[in-house]
Amino acid sequence: MKVQGVPYRTIWVKPDDPKVICLIDQRFLPHRFVIEDIETVESMAIAIRDMHVRGAGLIGASAGFGMYLAALEAAQTKDFQSHLDNCYALLKDTRPTAVNLAWALDRQMIAMAIGDTPERKIALAIKTAQVIADEDASYCRRIGEHGLEIIEAISQTKKDETVNILTHCNAGWLAFVDHGSATSPIYAAHDAGIKVHVYVDETRPRNQGAQLTAWELGEHGVNHTVIVDNAGGHLMQHGMVDLVITGTDRTTCTGDVANKIGTYLKALAAKDNNIPFYVALPSSTFDWEMEDGLAQIPIEERDPTEVKFVQGLNDGNIREVLITPPDSPVANYAFDVTPARLVTGLITERGICQANKDSILELFPERKV
Amino acid sequence: MKVQGVPYRTIWVKPDDPKVICLIDQRFLPHRFVIEDIETVESMAIAIRDMHVRGAGLIGASAGFGMYLAALEAAQTKDFQSHLDNCYALLKDTRPTAVNLAWALDRQMIAMAIGDTPERKIALAIKTAQVIADEDASYCRRIGEHGLEIIEAISQTKKDETVNILTHCNAGWLAFVDHGSATSPIYAAHDAGIKVHVYVDETRPRNQGAQLTAWELGEHGVNHTVIVDNAGGHLMQHGMVDLVITGTDRTTCTGDVANKIGTYLKALAAKDNNIPFYVALPSSTFDWEMEDGLAQIPIEERDPTEVKFVQGLNDGNIREVLITPPDSPVANYAFDVTPARLVTGLITERGICQANKDSILELFPERKV
Repeated sequence: MKVQGVPYRTIWVKPDDPKVICLIDQRFLPHRFVIEDIETVESMAIAIRDMHVRGAGLIGASAGFGMYLAALEAAQTKDFQSHLDNCYALLKDTRPTAVNLAWALDRQMIAMAIGDTPERKIALAIKTAQVIADEDASYCRRIGEHGLEIIEAISQTKKDETVNILTHCNAGWLAFVDHGSATSPIYAAHDAGIKVHVYVDETRPRNQGAQLTAWELGEHGVNHTVIVDNAGGHLMQHGMVDLVITGTDRTTCTGDVANKIGTYLKALAAKDNNIPFYVALPSSTFDWEMEDGLAQIPIEERDPTEVKFVQGLNDGNIREVLITPPDSPVANYAFDVTPARLVTGLITERGICQANKDSILELFPERKV
Repeated sequence: MKVQGVPYRTIWVKPDDPKVICLIDQRFLPHRFVIEDIETVESMAIAIRDMHVRGAGLIGASAGFGMYLAALEAAQTKDFQSHLDNCYALLKDTRPTAVNLAWALDRQMIAMAIGDTPERKIALAIKTAQVIADEDASYCRRIGEHGLEIIEAISQTKKDETVNILTHCNAGWLAFVDHGSATSPIYAAHDAGIKVHVYVDETRPRNQGAQLTAWELGEHGVNHTVIVDNAGGHLMQHGMVDLVITGTDRTTCTGDVANKIGTYLKALAAKDNNIPFYVALPSSTFDWEMEDGLAQIPIEERDPTEVKFVQGLNDGNIREVLITPPDSPVANYAFDVTPARLVTGLITERGICQANKDSILELFPERKV
């Protein structure tokens, strides 16, 4: 997607120096657009761990490129495999709960195993890293193509008036390699000339909506308005939202959706006001083992400082301000579960299905047991 | 209620100098506890306008004391009534939509009219100001006594385990003269030795929950936990909330409740999880003319800077940080309307009723037309 008019991905090989990986360091957005050069596995591990990059798809791609850097480094050592194993462990440890991280690392280990020389292993590693990144972008693009149909239909019903879409958190291209999940249909509609406007939940804590989604929509030229997380219900009551699209961190094979805390509240409001509520996801986000999201999906409790402090720009500096009494206890649940009964449909790279097991398995018949 | 162990009201006559009014300047909470001496009508107007004081009950009381200061000043002029009229206009202009403001000012004008000398008018003014403040505190105390029964019943059902109560925004004693509306049953239960714990929504924008409710509960010794506004649904899904109590800015005679933006979302979640959702209010908050809250209650749009900037403590200084891209448009709706169908009951100074016209009029039969 575009930044200052120029198309970007979130991670890429440096054109004039293919031993360097470039990524957008998201810690300073929306206030500073910083591109970081990553030259070592150690630096990539820090970038993942300290959330210079975040989001399932992008973490997977970063791990893929990290293993390419690992191969480059291993070729300089006496024991290629031993260095590779150490790098694998280092990278795997950065975000223990990120499913895509381990998946990308394993894929690289398997790919490199068939190379019989360090040079061949390096060639396999860069190819695999590129494939992981390209696949991610391609899956997201296809989510956009399918989701576009929903927006097109609403646009026609509204006789080409602006379609108002509400989204929560950042399931944008910054969370993947390109396009995003929830944002992909929006970008597709915008690029197809359909009038869209996005209500962006600021998404406390961490404010990924205000900091990332608003920024990426603005840079790509998509009309949007930032709102507090409290506002969506009021907008829906007054006919100001035509459609809700969110991403998801994990979705059961029965259609229960774990996503950023607060998603459930928006789903309730959408239901109460008869507004379609869609969840966009690459199929890697399905958890095929789980049947009951509320009972089975573990909800991570994160550091209370994410609630107590808010980051922003003051006087040209990025600062954190304390917003609670210093001694007040704080709870910080990262996700909630939206039951399938509140979800109108799931937008995947293979098409759109209903949030129930039969409909999901119709799109993914290979998962039938 | 208590601050650092000492009982306070939000506004009072300075004990050693009865020509001075003291109030808690709420702009610096929870970081600094500042008591402001108000010696002129001009200063009181600034305190109301710039929100050193806020909340329906406290605005009314402040206006009452403001008119007492006006009488003191008027006695120093040649034309008592003319100065009084000017002060009335000055104070009335500070918060045009605050119903209690005009009500308190009018009450003072009527009270002073029967005084035949400046001295007598001053005596009437201070007495009326005290009555307005005392009435506010007394109404809130009675809300607490009635609401206490609800908490007691839940406590008994839970065999004296902690009762978990969620509240939104600040309908605490800081918004009134004492006790508060939503917090009054909580303080009553706490003071009666019932184990209570309060989940405090931080309440974006302006963070009145994180800044004021958490502070006042903490100072009075009530167990509480600050959460983001997004978290309440998750807590309710997991049986962590027994009861929701909020305040209201305006309630129709049919039981529709306008309150701080986001209240509707919590009411939806309470309904979805079969959790009682109560609204506490002094009866002055009823709008006896309105029958349809969603269609009739105007929803104020406030300054976008309240959303774009967050205030907090950094490095010992109270600062505001920008959290959105500087050019992103922002919408800032201050209130939403919770339909009566989602409200379990209304806690008033006269007792508890259901959120429908018949039940409300049973408590307030003089309003039957």
